[in-house]
Amino acid sequence: MANAPIDRLVIVGVGLIGGSFALALRRAGRVRYVVGVGRSRENLQRALERRVIDEIASDMPSALKGADVVLLATPVGQISRIMAHISPHLGPGTLVTDAGSTKQDVVAAAYRHLSGHLGNVVPAHPIAGAESSGVESAGADLYRNKNLILTPLVETSPEATERVAELWQACGANVLRMDAARHDGILAAVSHLPHMLAFLLMNHASSGTGRTDDPLPFAGSGFRDFTRIAGSSPEMWRDICLANREALLREIDAYLDELAALRDTLAQGDGPALERIFSMAREARQKWLETRSAT
Amino acid sequence: MANAPIDRLVIVGVGLIGGSFALALRRAGRVRYVVGVGRSRENLQRALERRVIDEIASDMPSALKGADVVLLATPVGQISRIMAHISPHLGPGTLVTDAGSTKQDVVAAAYRHLSGHLGNVVPAHPIAGAESSGVESAGADLYRNKNLILTPLVETSPEATERVAELWQACGANVLRMDAARHDGILAAVSHLPHMLAFLLMNHASSGTGRTDDPLPFAGSGFRDFTRIAGSSPEMWRDICLANREALLREIDAYLDELAALRDTLAQGDGPALERIFSMAREARQKWLETRSAT
Repeated sequence: MANAPIDRLVIVGVGLIGGSFALALRRAGRVRYVVGVGRSRENLQRALERRVIDEIASDMPSALKGADVVLLATPVGQISRIMAHISPHLGPGTLVTDAGSTKQDVVAAAYRHLSGHLGNVVPAHPIAGAESSGVESAGADLYRNKNLILTPLVETSPEATERVAELWQACGANVLRMDAARHDGILAAVSHLPHMLAFLLMNHASSGTGRTDDPLPFAGSGFRDFTRIAGSSPEMWRDICLANREALLREIDAYLDELAALRDTLAQGDGPALERIFSMAREARQKWLETRSAT
Repeated sequence: MANAPIDRLVIVGVGLIGGSFALALRRAGRVRYVVGVGRSRENLQRALERRVIDEIASDMPSALKGADVVLLATPVGQISRIMAHISPHLGPGTLVTDAGSTKQDVVAAAYRHLSGHLGNVVPAHPIAGAESSGVESAGADLYRNKNLILTPLVETSPEATERVAELWQACGANVLRMDAARHDGILAAVSHLPHMLAFLLMNHASSGTGRTDDPLPFAGSGFRDFTRIAGSSPEMWRDICLANREALLREIDAYLDELAALRDTLAQGDGPALERIFSMAREARQKWLETRSAT
């Protein structure tokens, strides 16, 4: 009965990501009871008021009792510690999944802390989000038509993977599978690097060295959209950077080289080369948009 | 009678920018007759069909005959040549303005080619746009609540500046004045640099060196917004880069240093420093958004 609703879902970290998962499953009729665990009592209280969760857990052992699924939806830097904390209290049938933006570190933490439970561990990453955070921003539609990447361990049972896949499909997500290293390399390029660039540009424009003028009052909508992701959670991004450091360093190094090359092209006043670079980018983006809308 | 409609407006380059100016002035009842000049007969034909212009000019002398205002709305690389071309045919009362994204080069071109006409030259830059281009994208609302920067020459008569300012105000723009060098420095930071970064990231993600995987299918909405400006016109951006080369090189150099510093912070695994950098960016953006919405 893979499609039967789950009786008890435990969400550790009831913010945008965890809250949206609960709301989407609820709307799909796929969960009966949701228990919230978190650092901020105030946030959990709002989650309760919004009917995102049915109960605020008093402690981890009682929260996990009889749980079908535990979703770890905290910043990735906390996942290892939480796995260590939940490990002694997991029932034999409880699935453990997460929503972390990096996957090799989650896999490593699972080997470290959940060694007796690996058949039920299904690391996952929904490629969805917003620059807003917190349960107020959660919504049942967040995952609709978004990619969700599962990175099961070799020890993960096919049934566990399948059940987690079905839950995310019930949220509207397009579920894909790959290994954790491949996931982290891909996300470093299309998510982690652009976040670094956006954070830096925001700081560059607001406190650039040696600038007498404040240029920000003259920034337009291009600047606004470019820096949208610079509104993301600093704590979450600190953790992502540290967890995916090697892949992100490779991306930054390559990008530094590419920017230095563009700088030289510009210094030489090579108009045709500049136009080629910009055309290539525009065409690549156009092609990418077409592929996206086709799916 | 500063607020009387102008009888004859000539637009050279009837695309998004020029077309939107015509449509906005028309809706405000501030122009009686619009003549379009351009390279593409097909585009001018569409402009005529959409009632953006009333007439396609057969040649420049007849287009300029009796013109109250000429708007140069081509990519900035063409403005010098066009000024040389229009110079012999300008009536003594015809105002010449433009919508170029760089201003020192436009000012220099005016000194070169319109030396007998400087009192009527009012360089301008509307900070508005879209990644789409062409007259199909033009609309009467493009300039509503957008900043418009005028960079009059010392020779420009106050009356000419005032008349051009009023036309842009009639389009809904917030009109500001500054000198051309200041304009170019500011725009290099908040517009030209981010465009470079976005073009480069798009190329980086679509053809990164040494990457076995295509990461683009996994790019999300953050990537989409970050790269929106990479859909801009390559010709236009080639011209902007060349026209504002010095200021843009300074911005790229500073940003290269900042990115290299972030790289080192990451390589050292300095979590608190990363979080500080990201927090500073988020706060700066929040503050900027509040200032924007307050105006």
